[in-house]
Amino acid sequence: MAPEESWEVNGTSTTPSTAEKLLVHHKENHFTAGEVVRDVILGVSDGLTVPFALAAGLSGANAPSSLILTAGLAEVAAGAISMGLGGYLAAKSEADHYMRELKREQEEIVTVPDIEAAEIGEILAQYGLEPHEYSPVVNALRNNPQAWLDFMMKFELGLEKPDPKRALQSALTIALSYVVGGLVPLLPYVFIPIAQKAMLTSIGVTLAALLFFGYVKGQFTGNYPLSSAVQTAFIGALASAAAYAMAKVIQST
Amino acid sequence: MAPEESWEVNGTSTTPSTAEKLLVHHKENHFTAGEVVRDVILGVSDGLTVPFALAAGLSGANAPSSLILTAGLAEVAAGAISMGLGGYLAAKSEADHYMRELKREQEEIVTVPDIEAAEIGEILAQYGLEPHEYSPVVNALRNNPQAWLDFMMKFELGLEKPDPKRALQSALTIALSYVVGGLVPLLPYVFIPIAQKAMLTSIGVTLAALLFFGYVKGQFTGNYPLSSAVQTAFIGALASAAAYAMAKVIQST
Repeated sequence: MAPEESWEVNGTSTTPSTAEKLLVHHKENHFTAGEVVRDVILGVSDGLTVPFALAAGLSGANAPSSLILTAGLAEVAAGAISMGLGGYLAAKSEADHYMRELKREQEEIVTVPDIEAAEIGEILAQYGLEPHEYSPVVNALRNNPQAWLDFMMKFELGLEKPDPKRALQSALTIALSYVVGGLVPLLPYVFIPIAQKAMLTSIGVTLAALLFFGYVKGQFTGNYPLSSAVQTAFIGALASAAAYAMAKVIQST
Repeated sequence: MAPEESWEVNGTSTTPSTAEKLLVHHKENHFTAGEVVRDVILGVSDGLTVPFALAAGLSGANAPSSLILTAGLAEVAAGAISMGLGGYLAAKSEADHYMRELKREQEEIVTVPDIEAAEIGEILAQYGLEPHEYSPVVNALRNNPQAWLDFMMKFELGLEKPDPKRALQSALTIALSYVVGGLVPLLPYVFIPIAQKAMLTSIGVTLAALLFFGYVKGQFTGNYPLSSAVQTAFIGALASAAAYAMAKVIQST
């Protein structure tokens, strides 16, 4: 077996296996949120907030529990479909967009390679690299069309290849999360026929849910959990105050 | 003035100014949607759909126009705040996240430069580049800490530096768009006291708005406008059908 090719890095000799060892043993602590977690957060966030605010607003307008439930659950159904189906179609569109950009880039590599090669240089020059430093990269890519294409998609266009299964999974996750989130503030109205009383319970459980959920969200997204909890609860409070005020105003006209 | 340094690219001699001329004269036709347009689309999309569905659902439950308006406008207020304020805080969080990752990366460049340098190699090796081809890039970056940092942020972490003004602008755009979108299906209920009649008008104007808006959305996002128009209208139709059905079910129990 041939000895490993080593290269000079700032006067120190290193080899690929040494580099790899450095990478494996050093675990950088960068946070990456799972896509499912993100979708759950998205769905539950909205589900906890808007149905809660709507129910609180209608309670303020002295509507009976049955009507509040009607409006609330109708909104949850509509919201879940809007978010879920809307998200699904948006993801599909993104996938189509990616394929079109890929095809275009592929054509340009074949028809105007000098321009594409110049673009590689332009991208790398932004990092202070001189032509004699990046030209080996340009040449290597020119001789490897697949890698060249990947490089342009990522570094010129900033596009990642979307996973086709993700669109459906994402839509279902968001829609289901929205329903679960929406049921939290609405269930009190199922069990407590007097709307004003149900509203107090709804406020209590929803506030608790918003604080808890905001805290969890903060942990998953790498932001300060306490701050996230307070912010999430605050949005819910403000949204319901606005809904309450709006309902009072309409009722008085 | 010294003559421009030229370099060999696959046997052809080229210079930076030639490359630049190639780039300027060749206009690649890649689509990029403005952030404001994206926010308007986001806000109006939801604003047209959920308030419309809620109003249609409550009409199906034989609620009077006044109550439908109460519920609808309360929902618009709550939804606008949820989307707007939620979006603002999310953008702020992203900005904080970026700053924390930037700081961490900066530290790592100072404390463990060999590992960071190995990472540059790992990133470039994914594009089929050999060590002797990418080592000039690694060395150049090692000698230019600012460029090195930018390179890692973009190519390792895929993070773009967020614009601080964008968070507020984005939130206001989304919230305002949601309100405008929501008013379209609700205004008929202001002028037509009999809910069932108002609903027919609401369906008519909202369907037209969904088709038109979906078409415009398709043009801006680079997707087929007709397909986008039909999809947008379909989501609205499905959401309102679900809300209508849900309202009927609740009313009958």
